[in-house]
Amino acid sequence: MRYMKKILVFGAGRSATTLIRYLGDHARTENWQVTVADASPDLIQQKIQGFDALEGMEINVHSAKQRTALIGRHDFVISMLPWTLHTLVANDCLRLGKHLITASYVNAEMNALAVKARKKGLFFMGELGLDPGLDHMSALRLIRQIKQKGCTITSFHSYAGGLVAPTSDTNPWHYKITWNPRNIILAGQGTIQFRDQGALRLTTYYDLFKTAFPIAIHGKDRYEVYPNRDSLKYISLYELTGIPSIMRGTVRIRGFSRAWDAIIKLGLTESQTPIGVEEPLTWAQLIRGFLPLDPTRSVRSLCAEMLGIAESDPVMDQLEWLGIFSDRSVGDIGLTPADYLQNLLEDRWKLEPEDRDLVVMEHRIHYQEHGHNKEIRSSLEHEGTNQDKTAMADLVGLPLAHATRLFLDGKFDKAQMSVPFEAFVADPILDALAGDGIHFHEQIIEHGDSSFHSIIS
Amino acid sequence: MRYMKKILVFGAGRSATTLIRYLGDHARTENWQVTVADASPDLIQQKIQGFDALEGMEINVHSAKQRTALIGRHDFVISMLPWTLHTLVANDCLRLGKHLITASYVNAEMNALAVKARKKGLFFMGELGLDPGLDHMSALRLIRQIKQKGCTITSFHSYAGGLVAPTSDTNPWHYKITWNPRNIILAGQGTIQFRDQGALRLTTYYDLFKTAFPIAIHGKDRYEVYPNRDSLKYISLYELTGIPSIMRGTVRIRGFSRAWDAIIKLGLTESQTPIGVEEPLTWAQLIRGFLPLDPTRSVRSLCAEMLGIAESDPVMDQLEWLGIFSDRSVGDIGLTPADYLQNLLEDRWKLEPEDRDLVVMEHRIHYQEHGHNKEIRSSLEHEGTNQDKTAMADLVGLPLAHATRLFLDGKFDKAQMSVPFEAFVADPILDALAGDGIHFHEQIIEHGDSSFHSIIS
Repeated sequence: MRYMKKILVFGAGRSATTLIRYLGDHARTENWQVTVADASPDLIQQKIQGFDALEGMEINVHSAKQRTALIGRHDFVISMLPWTLHTLVANDCLRLGKHLITASYVNAEMNALAVKARKKGLFFMGELGLDPGLDHMSALRLIRQIKQKGCTITSFHSYAGGLVAPTSDTNPWHYKITWNPRNIILAGQGTIQFRDQGALRLTTYYDLFKTAFPIAIHGKDRYEVYPNRDSLKYISLYELTGIPSIMRGTVRIRGFSRAWDAIIKLGLTESQTPIGVEEPLTWAQLIRGFLPLDPTRSVRSLCAEMLGIAESDPVMDQLEWLGIFSDRSVGDIGLTPADYLQNLLEDRWKLEPEDRDLVVMEHRIHYQEHGHNKEIRSSLEHEGTNQDKTAMADLVGLPLAHATRLFLDGKFDKAQMSVPFEAFVADPILDALAGDGIHFHEQIIEHGDSSFHSIIS
Repeated sequence: MRYMKKILVFGAGRSATTLIRYLGDHARTENWQVTVADASPDLIQQKIQGFDALEGMEINVHSAKQRTALIGRHDFVISMLPWTLHTLVANDCLRLGKHLITASYVNAEMNALAVKARKKGLFFMGELGLDPGLDHMSALRLIRQIKQKGCTITSFHSYAGGLVAPTSDTNPWHYKITWNPRNIILAGQGTIQFRDQGALRLTTYYDLFKTAFPIAIHGKDRYEVYPNRDSLKYISLYELTGIPSIMRGTVRIRGFSRAWDAIIKLGLTESQTPIGVEEPLTWAQLIRGFLPLDPTRSVRSLCAEMLGIAESDPVMDQLEWLGIFSDRSVGDIGLTPADYLQNLLEDRWKLEPEDRDLVVMEHRIHYQEHGHNKEIRSSLEHEGTNQDKTAMADLVGLPLAHATRLFLDGKFDKAQMSVPFEAFVADPILDALAGDGIHFHEQIIEHGDSSFHSIIS
């Protein structure tokens, strides 16, 4: 008789849907006992219903006693909690001798815990979701393949976005919320850095969304990309020292970035300063605060003038559609502009029950093979089924699910890293995803001239 | 025989010079024993030499044991440490039953400690320096005088700046560093808020320095002002509920703000993102990173184009004078743009040994008296003596020094607040400062019409 493996999933939010479903579907055949723990009994019930192999457990993650008791009686922990809470769970797992995986970025603190855990023979790995996760695994497989052929890589570009499928694209922003809304509001803050044709390229937050450029992904000419905050760190992470051009970017449907630039110029993404009014505030009053003082003109007209665009510009319709020129209340007073914006967008960009989301990813790598300039494009498009079974939840959850299964089958014993960069970890996960119908389409393009190629014209 | 009072000064940096000198000058007559504690024996020596009543003590403020031993044998503590360290000292003072004053803003944490301290009969007060400190004391005295006459206040504007005296004004920015350089770099970040003619006014960081407006202070027509981050909170603090116009602002010599706006547009005040290069970087390379990629054109020319100004614009000379178009190294790699800028400005804007700084402050209050519209302007100008005895050190240190003396003379026993807002605390300090030659010049202007007056045209 095989020993029954006890798996604990911490967090039953939206991005855990597919993971929990996979664990429920495979628990009997794999001989797993699975517990789903969350602060919300409703969320637990939603996620475990229909799976008699899944057990729910209401928990206050801030209670060390509750955490210790729960983690203590499992073998393998999957943390789907907000990343700020991972270290709580990681410290417990280290102390109690339990394996741990997450879909979140491995920061210095989590890496230090993972190094200690490996010394105790534990499997501790983060970045096992979509981005970070699938992006690394798929990009590094390409990079390894090209290097193994003895070719020189001259540029690396990788673009990804969580979007809404064309059939559910019902608003002028062509966008709905399928992941952490706070991250959507704060995206791009800081100094944006990448490398182009050997030169250091820097962009301020203030200029970033103006630099978005149109792009076709998997042949579909409806996208645009703006650069992610820090592409330079991937030079060493991906072992691309000396590469002339490297950029990772975020994909949106065309027209999003110009309008988001207006949102930034209006001051609505600032998250530090509570607005100090004593009376309830409408959106029109808040926006007027940022515009020249002239009660005789409409807020829309003043706004267009401040942004330096015509009132007939599509951006003005995108702003109007959000309701920021209306008498709608901003909500409780004493919050920051970013808080007000988040509350508004969570309503206006809400994914409806039957909406289908769409995740796209494309890597573009230029390389020289026997004096010829070639480019490989590797694209992924994956559509969700509805509000619950999103593409986002699939692509975050399935790599975690396969990593769990593969580890418990003894495949990852020798993992040396805290991230899925090693081929013997990443490739079986990518193969399993292909078995789920999630695979990259690859295309090789021959380029005539041998000059460096810049993706940004 | 009078009991000897034991005073402890924590921190012997530049802004503590005048405070320590005052304590040294008065120790014998006031029967004080004064200890000056700092991490740097050099700083201690500089500050206490020539005063045989002053004792120096080298201390690691992060050592609880050293703090407890030192605080334990004093009666009254003046913390001149960076504000982030005040709570360390405040917790000790609360526990050991010692009085404490600071020149720093009283945040919620410090206020909570002060409330507890008062319950134990201790004197705990912050904002006893220049700004915050003298600004409140002088503004509230005017407000009280106007209210006592039964007049209605219709606007409150208060402007202050730490500048360089005309005789020491030797660079095209008309600015040198006389206080915390980090605060200079980060000034204005967040959402700027004030009220004008009854309307909420908001400004983004990106627009702030463009909104600077020219102003004459004490009749000298060489200044400009940009609004401080949050003027709205002073409506309740100063008991000005319903006031149509209120703004606090920062004073600079004219021409500063346009050039600082260029610094912001160049991305040089961003403090979160280390620039990820592997090789040493020059200023020209860093700036080129933010500009269109064109090695055939000079960085100065590309910069002017990006900023939308002529190459002959004075702003370009201000930037050039800093050295940001030069092959000067930015310093150690791996720092943020704000770090590089701070290192540069600490050199280029250095106060020379014989330089004299200048502090200016002006309150402008409009009020209605028997149907007449009047304005009171109350101005302070104070020049430093040299690099050590700055106006900044005088105006931060003397209010603290007088507060110390007055408290030890039993004058502040009944203080109910953690800030010097009560007249019986503030007025004796202001009177003592007038005795030091630091007084406000007051002028009353009669305005003809009865419409609201806007300071910003």
